[in-house]
Amino acid sequence: MTELLVDKKVVIIGLGLIGGSIARALSNKKLCREIVAVGRQEAVLQQALSDGVITGYATDVATGCEGADLVIIAVPSLTVEAILAQIKPVLTKDMVLTDAASVKGEIVAAAERVFGTVPSQFVPGHPIAGSEHSGYTASFESLYIGKRVILTPLADTDSTATNLVSTLWQQLGAQVLTMTVQRHDEVLAATSHLPHLLAYALVDTLSQRGESEDIFRYAAGGFRDFTRIASSDPQMWHDIFLTNSKATAAVLDEYIEELNRLKSAMLTGDSEELMKTFVRAKNSRDRFLEQMTDKNQNE
Amino acid sequence: MTELLVDKKVVIIGLGLIGGSIARALSNKKLCREIVAVGRQEAVLQQALSDGVITGYATDVATGCEGADLVIIAVPSLTVEAILAQIKPVLTKDMVLTDAASVKGEIVAAAERVFGTVPSQFVPGHPIAGSEHSGYTASFESLYIGKRVILTPLADTDSTATNLVSTLWQQLGAQVLTMTVQRHDEVLAATSHLPHLLAYALVDTLSQRGESEDIFRYAAGGFRDFTRIASSDPQMWHDIFLTNSKATAAVLDEYIEELNRLKSAMLTGDSEELMKTFVRAKNSRDRFLEQMTDKNQNE
Repeated sequence: MTELLVDKKVVIIGLGLIGGSIARALSNKKLCREIVAVGRQEAVLQQALSDGVITGYATDVATGCEGADLVIIAVPSLTVEAILAQIKPVLTKDMVLTDAASVKGEIVAAAERVFGTVPSQFVPGHPIAGSEHSGYTASFESLYIGKRVILTPLADTDSTATNLVSTLWQQLGAQVLTMTVQRHDEVLAATSHLPHLLAYALVDTLSQRGESEDIFRYAAGGFRDFTRIASSDPQMWHDIFLTNSKATAAVLDEYIEELNRLKSAMLTGDSEELMKTFVRAKNSRDRFLEQMTDKNQNE
Repeated sequence: MTELLVDKKVVIIGLGLIGGSIARALSNKKLCREIVAVGRQEAVLQQALSDGVITGYATDVATGCEGADLVIIAVPSLTVEAILAQIKPVLTKDMVLTDAASVKGEIVAAAERVFGTVPSQFVPGHPIAGSEHSGYTASFESLYIGKRVILTPLADTDSTATNLVSTLWQQLGAQVLTMTVQRHDEVLAATSHLPHLLAYALVDTLSQRGESEDIFRYAAGGFRDFTRIASSDPQMWHDIFLTNSKATAAVLDEYIEELNRLKSAMLTGDSEELMKTFVRAKNSRDRFLEQMTDKNQNE
């Protein structure tokens, strides 16, 4: 399996936390022949080159993709369409494409708009890995170790392409899973997009209160952990909410309903309802933690 | 200041995470003459005695409080009233009382119901420290180091009593602040009670979904941090929400309003509104983190 990548030229478009971490792992383990980054900030590209993280770079997509075997698009969701349009003129039959965006439905729609039909060598993908920090300086080699990557190949996707992308992620230490585009967007809306929205909304609500400095002053460690994801890149999350708005709004509606139910239980002194809910939630989370532990042990 | 505690008999009612951690720090630093714990589970009390964490114990409040200089009530909020009623017959003029409950209005009301007027030697208090783990086995000596403790003395509270309680917490490494009962309950509703409700509600909402095991399966580290507080003791939080329901419901209303605003921005594609909110929230949280860092450096 290792051989699959070793003679390949890999192009990474967008050298931020996600792309930078891919490049670091690829270069450190010498997994492929060439690693070319495409970005807009030449200083960052120069830095990566002198770090030995990439073997070359370009500031325009067409130049960078010349002779590429595998192109990984690692830019904010709403920028993917523009990148695909720039790849289109230089796309060859043997060039495999994938992306790392947190939503998949809108990415597939963007590919349809650009290409008419989604090219069979395009494998939509999403590494479930990240950090509240962003940019090349935040990237690190071990980001994908023990993490899950979801691929959402379509009916017409070439299995050779899927295999290559799958090999890439496995070489970086991740566990690869496949599911449908729609299922991906629903699951991620619930487990990732909604929590980020809730954290942003909480910090924003409190910061709008009269004496917000004072309020934050009395917050403790639990609050810091709970709001960690509100320090995530605003641009990236702006794009995610605009591109996965329906699935996120659907689970948000369920959530607001639950909040209203708990509020009513609090105000009417419904002891049993509160206790039942908290015990059920604690048990669910404790089971979830066991799953996470099992997962990490398996890897 | 060290001398203030050294010849005192300290009684801790409730030897869980909070009370157990107080006892560990007091005994390890030999800060007082006697540390007597009162609890219902004799096996736990025996364990603490053989650990050298306490110098004695009792399973009834009146016996335990005999000759006490300082009594610390560290039981769930709704149990405090019953404890105060058991202390009443043995309360002497020189016995200082305090508590560690996360709400203060309802504790003061409970003291009024038990004593008619709140005894001048009762100093309502709240250490802003904890963990998602609970019980004596989860307690640890350094829990209060660098943490904040809020005291909410009333107009009639004896300043000698306030000083003794303040000394206790400072000796355990905490920073002591005072504020009014009402202000305490509002601030904590916003920074602690609401986040816990949100975390319980999120885990519960997702666990009610059809394929919840599957949903949790794709959750990542951000979700684990975000929901950590949903593993907190259900009984403790049940009591908190029932006793601070109004202040929590008030800030919850503001929060639901914010969620609806963001939902509408998502669904109408209001890019500017989303971006503005996320940037504002990220900036607020980053300022909050700086404050936390400053605080820790000062201690």
